[in-house]
Amino acid sequence: MKRKPLTDAWSRVAIEAVSPEIDGGRFPVKRTVGEAVRVEADIFADGHDVLAARLLHRRDGSKSWASAPMIFYDNDRWRGEFTVSELGFHLYTIEAWVDRFATWKRDLRKRIEAGQDVSVELQAGAELVDAAALGAAGKDAERLRECTDLLKKTPARLGAVEAVMSPETAALMARLGPRGRITRYDKELAVAVDRERARFGAWYEFFPRSTAPEAGRHGNFKDCEKRLEYAASMGFDVVYLPPIHPIGRMHRKGRNNQTTCLPTDPGSPWAIGSEQGGHCAVHPELGTLEDFRAFREKAGKLGLEVALDIALQCSPDHPYAKEHPEWFKRRPDGTIRYAENPPKKYEDIYPFDMESEAWTPLWEELKNIFLFWGEQGIRIFRVDNPHTKPFAFWEWAIQEVKRRYPDALFLSEAFTRPKVMYQLAKLGFTQSYTYFAWRSTKSELTQYLSELTRPPLCEFFRPSFWPNTPDILTAVHVEGGRPAFMSRFVLASTLGASYGIYGPAFELCVKAPRQSGSEEYLDSEKYEIKHWNLNAPHSLKGLIAKVNRARRENPALQSDRGLRFHGTDNESLLCYSKQDEGLSNVVLVVVNLDWRYVQSGWVDIPVASLGLDPARPYEVRDVLSGARYKWGARNFVKLDPNVMPAHVFQVSQQSSLAASCIASRDVASGKQQRNEDFSKD
Amino acid sequence: MKRKPLTDAWSRVAIEAVSPEIDGGRFPVKRTVGEAVRVEADIFADGHDVLAARLLHRRDGSKSWASAPMIFYDNDRWRGEFTVSELGFHLYTIEAWVDRFATWKRDLRKRIEAGQDVSVELQAGAELVDAAALGAAGKDAERLRECTDLLKKTPARLGAVEAVMSPETAALMARLGPRGRITRYDKELAVAVDRERARFGAWYEFFPRSTAPEAGRHGNFKDCEKRLEYAASMGFDVVYLPPIHPIGRMHRKGRNNQTTCLPTDPGSPWAIGSEQGGHCAVHPELGTLEDFRAFREKAGKLGLEVALDIALQCSPDHPYAKEHPEWFKRRPDGTIRYAENPPKKYEDIYPFDMESEAWTPLWEELKNIFLFWGEQGIRIFRVDNPHTKPFAFWEWAIQEVKRRYPDALFLSEAFTRPKVMYQLAKLGFTQSYTYFAWRSTKSELTQYLSELTRPPLCEFFRPSFWPNTPDILTAVHVEGGRPAFMSRFVLASTLGASYGIYGPAFELCVKAPRQSGSEEYLDSEKYEIKHWNLNAPHSLKGLIAKVNRARRENPALQSDRGLRFHGTDNESLLCYSKQDEGLSNVVLVVVNLDWRYVQSGWVDIPVASLGLDPARPYEVRDVLSGARYKWGARNFVKLDPNVMPAHVFQVSQQSSLAASCIASRDVASGKQQRNEDFSKD
Repeated sequence: MKRKPLTDAWSRVAIEAVSPEIDGGRFPVKRTVGEAVRVEADIFADGHDVLAARLLHRRDGSKSWASAPMIFYDNDRWRGEFTVSELGFHLYTIEAWVDRFATWKRDLRKRIEAGQDVSVELQAGAELVDAAALGAAGKDAERLRECTDLLKKTPARLGAVEAVMSPETAALMARLGPRGRITRYDKELAVAVDRERARFGAWYEFFPRSTAPEAGRHGNFKDCEKRLEYAASMGFDVVYLPPIHPIGRMHRKGRNNQTTCLPTDPGSPWAIGSEQGGHCAVHPELGTLEDFRAFREKAGKLGLEVALDIALQCSPDHPYAKEHPEWFKRRPDGTIRYAENPPKKYEDIYPFDMESEAWTPLWEELKNIFLFWGEQGIRIFRVDNPHTKPFAFWEWAIQEVKRRYPDALFLSEAFTRPKVMYQLAKLGFTQSYTYFAWRSTKSELTQYLSELTRPPLCEFFRPSFWPNTPDILTAVHVEGGRPAFMSRFVLASTLGASYGIYGPAFELCVKAPRQSGSEEYLDSEKYEIKHWNLNAPHSLKGLIAKVNRARRENPALQSDRGLRFHGTDNESLLCYSKQDEGLSNVVLVVVNLDWRYVQSGWVDIPVASLGLDPARPYEVRDVLSGARYKWGARNFVKLDPNVMPAHVFQVSQQSSLAASCIASRDVASGKQQRNEDFSKD
Repeated sequence: MKRKPLTDAWSRVAIEAVSPEIDGGRFPVKRTVGEAVRVEADIFADGHDVLAARLLHRRDGSKSWASAPMIFYDNDRWRGEFTVSELGFHLYTIEAWVDRFATWKRDLRKRIEAGQDVSVELQAGAELVDAAALGAAGKDAERLRECTDLLKKTPARLGAVEAVMSPETAALMARLGPRGRITRYDKELAVAVDRERARFGAWYEFFPRSTAPEAGRHGNFKDCEKRLEYAASMGFDVVYLPPIHPIGRMHRKGRNNQTTCLPTDPGSPWAIGSEQGGHCAVHPELGTLEDFRAFREKAGKLGLEVALDIALQCSPDHPYAKEHPEWFKRRPDGTIRYAENPPKKYEDIYPFDMESEAWTPLWEELKNIFLFWGEQGIRIFRVDNPHTKPFAFWEWAIQEVKRRYPDALFLSEAFTRPKVMYQLAKLGFTQSYTYFAWRSTKSELTQYLSELTRPPLCEFFRPSFWPNTPDILTAVHVEGGRPAFMSRFVLASTLGASYGIYGPAFELCVKAPRQSGSEEYLDSEKYEIKHWNLNAPHSLKGLIAKVNRARRENPALQSDRGLRFHGTDNESLLCYSKQDEGLSNVVLVVVNLDWRYVQSGWVDIPVASLGLDPARPYEVRDVLSGARYKWGARNFVKLDPNVMPAHVFQVSQQSSLAASCIASRDVASGKQQRNEDFSKD
């Protein structure tokens, strides 16, 4: 403990418990361009003086602070906010001081109300206004001097008191009054500002090799362009491809992950690298780098952005294995150590030794993979298993990539323990896969989503909800089939501003596991080329298109901040709403979580807190069926999973007098609102 | 945001969410000598390797760290502890690393269990043990070399595996094995260590001038020695006196705080200073400084420590007002500003201007007041209204005083907003007055005490519970009379390891307010000399003595850490237990909060969590009545407020076989334990 010396650098105001602040300011909070940062702090001093505080903020690199007022609201807690408008880092901190003029004014008012003689106090006020005038110029100085002249005339007249208590004087004094010892919060906190896609986007994952129109042939980037049109027709924002690099031959996995393969088996795209190249090469059967760029451009024309999967691992045939054996661990017998999770062995994969003696050139090389694909126009990276590489690597590499490409986004695929998952988000990953796939009951979903969408998590962790991935076919889908695919889709896409599906397996409701209890697909696309019938009648593409359209049309669905769960009297009915920051857009969702049976019940809506007038009914329009209902605080819902297990309601309330008359009549009748079974529409 | 450069100073392990840690380490946590500091942290790394961690701790000033193991317990959370044994500051931090040998061993076990050939892995193990042997000496090195020799023999025999998997090898490798990149937590956190009295003590406040045996005379320190015997007979640990300095004459307050006084009125002891001296002088009518020292010595002989009230304010007659007018604020008419809380005026008090231009000599002088009384042997300071002086002053002054007197204790009398109250505790006050006086219902007490006795508050805020003070006569006492004084006493003295009363007003159940609704006493001792009949039959001195004896005999009552509330089926019955750290001592308390009526009901005791065998009854002995009962999980209680509104039970359970036989018979009968009304004993 250093002894605290008696220096002049003290001030009376304490600033504490600043929020948001992640791990004492070690990590930035996250926002997208145009979003507000609402800052709160405990601000207090000894005694009973009136305080003033302001929020200082600036773009990183800018030398001057902008300021926003902070307002006291309760129990020594103050609040202010600013909006971030540019990519990159922004900084914020707080200043507070004893407001001597406001204190004097408050006391003067009390003295006057008690009928005391205030002549000496008016002189004291004149001294404060005088001090402000000294630092003022032009009209400001003139006004302040007028004020002191009035105050100094003894006995002061009522006019002097009126002048000094006026809002104009208050504004002048707030700006120019003496501030004495100012407390500056001892940290500058950071906001990492990304573009909108960091917050909001619908992702569609597909295997490019499974896109040939004829069965059996290896698809290529030309074929993929057709698949882009298909994804665009469903309203997706991002198409994301598993690794597109040459695939190793040694220990190549056969169908269903068999350790031996046929010569015709294409292998797993995650066994990256062959003599045809590594992480910066394109698998020849998919085409050339030029073909890839054409594909990317086609996507852009369709309003789609391409995301690539970056898996930092090698097949034994990867050029690195020969050129840089020092980047891998060796066994005492001299061979390179393949991946293992004892007793399981993954002989087709060599992990990097990130702690190797030669870690510096290795890390540089790995970072350059991102930069290479950045040069090809890619700005979204889905990172495979980031939790098996050091945190320090990611913090450094993401910063380096964003320095070159400030609009780059990183999705972390860390299906691991929560603290590791959250750490990756703190140190730079833009978005993260979540445990959503395994949260299916009402209490699980309510608890998990509440955790994700509230501080501190919501400040740095942006969830992405995936009902399925090539590695994850959950029991809900296996058992529930198409009705479960529908409800899980509505949940993912309306609970999460960011979500994705692995298709066409998802929209075609593929549900056969490799064996009972497995989360692996039978005949998984990871080890073979598939041919999909995109026009199968049971496809969910229509539903997907409707929801994606609603997502684009409703700002409420474009952020996770406005999520709230509402009471229902049936454990199978989940009800929630999302609203945008201005409360001008509200979406209400009700989902039947039971994929077997029709479920019905009452849902309770806290009408006023959705920005609606609780004295009048409001209209809900189901974007899935087009049906409209008049709703109130308590509403009846009935959902048939075999028809449509969910309502996705756009909420509106007329503000005209006429509407208000109708409404009050409805309410007066005392009847609760009731809407009919969806299937009757 | 500084760009994170690629340096060699990275390691794979993250250490986060360390507890206790107050405001990012800005403030120390508090302990008393002999108490444990249990430290927890999130500790995790990328991948799946086994980790190891240790807690480092040292006395401030010592150069070498001692270390204690940290143990994983759940969800990446680790725990370790150390005990503080000396006054002053102690520091602690954490180190963690990837345990390569433990990882290798875990994997080897899995490989062997799966029947894999492990010969190459044994070689890898030999390399790790070899590396450890290089850094070892003597027998350690010998043992490790034996181990590697065994491992290197191919094919390795079972004996080699057994040797390397043995606990001895594990212990050697834990101590000497290669640790690679170590993560050291980036902060050194502090513990402020005080003596026991900081945690545990019963305080008795009295006005020394009201101690003369005959009515009307001003008491003096000689008279006070008799009062010490009285306090000691009730089992108090600390006697605390209002200010003992000369009292000002100008604007002296009369009886009941009247603005005019009679020449015979003694004035308020808080109007400090006259021409006879200031804060370092003794009021002549009380005696001399020598008399005071004799009084202090007498107290010591009786096992009592004397605490003084330090009120940093002056009467207009204080020598400072003449000698240092620059230490006070002036009004524009040139007069010194008296204390005000507009429109209220306190013309008998001049507050210091702690922001005065001459703040440095002023602060020095004020700090020296504490040092002066330290020289007179005083080590406990009750500080009047510390929340009206700058935080920076207290942080500095308390540190300075404790540098000279490490055993000094400071009790903060800050009846103000919670965040200000807690800030004073953070920056150095040993103990604090609380809102206890105004918490009287079951839910109020449960909620408030739970807040105070759990992290983060319990780490830095030591509550002191005062049912009354010379300024506080609460409605509970006014309305409830003697039964309320009894229940409030039991609550204060068993909920709080530190508590105090203002006597003899308390034990004599003085309950007349100045006017209806006022918390001021009628004919308050603050403005006049009182004469008390200490032997009045309604005095609570017997009850007080019993409880204070129980507090000394039961370690459970000497700390607030072991407090837990238990369910009762009657809103008027509050039930709680306290236990010491080793669970060897348990005290159970039941209080009837209704001072009007007999209340009865069932209380539920979580028997196992009190360290008792839930399969057997246990005995509770009421230290107030001496009655004994057999209790179980659910027990009947009936309390008559006019007899005794509380049980204070010492809990015991025989561990002999005989007891166990009796117990199982009782339990087998299936009857719930029931004990009779206290009044029947």
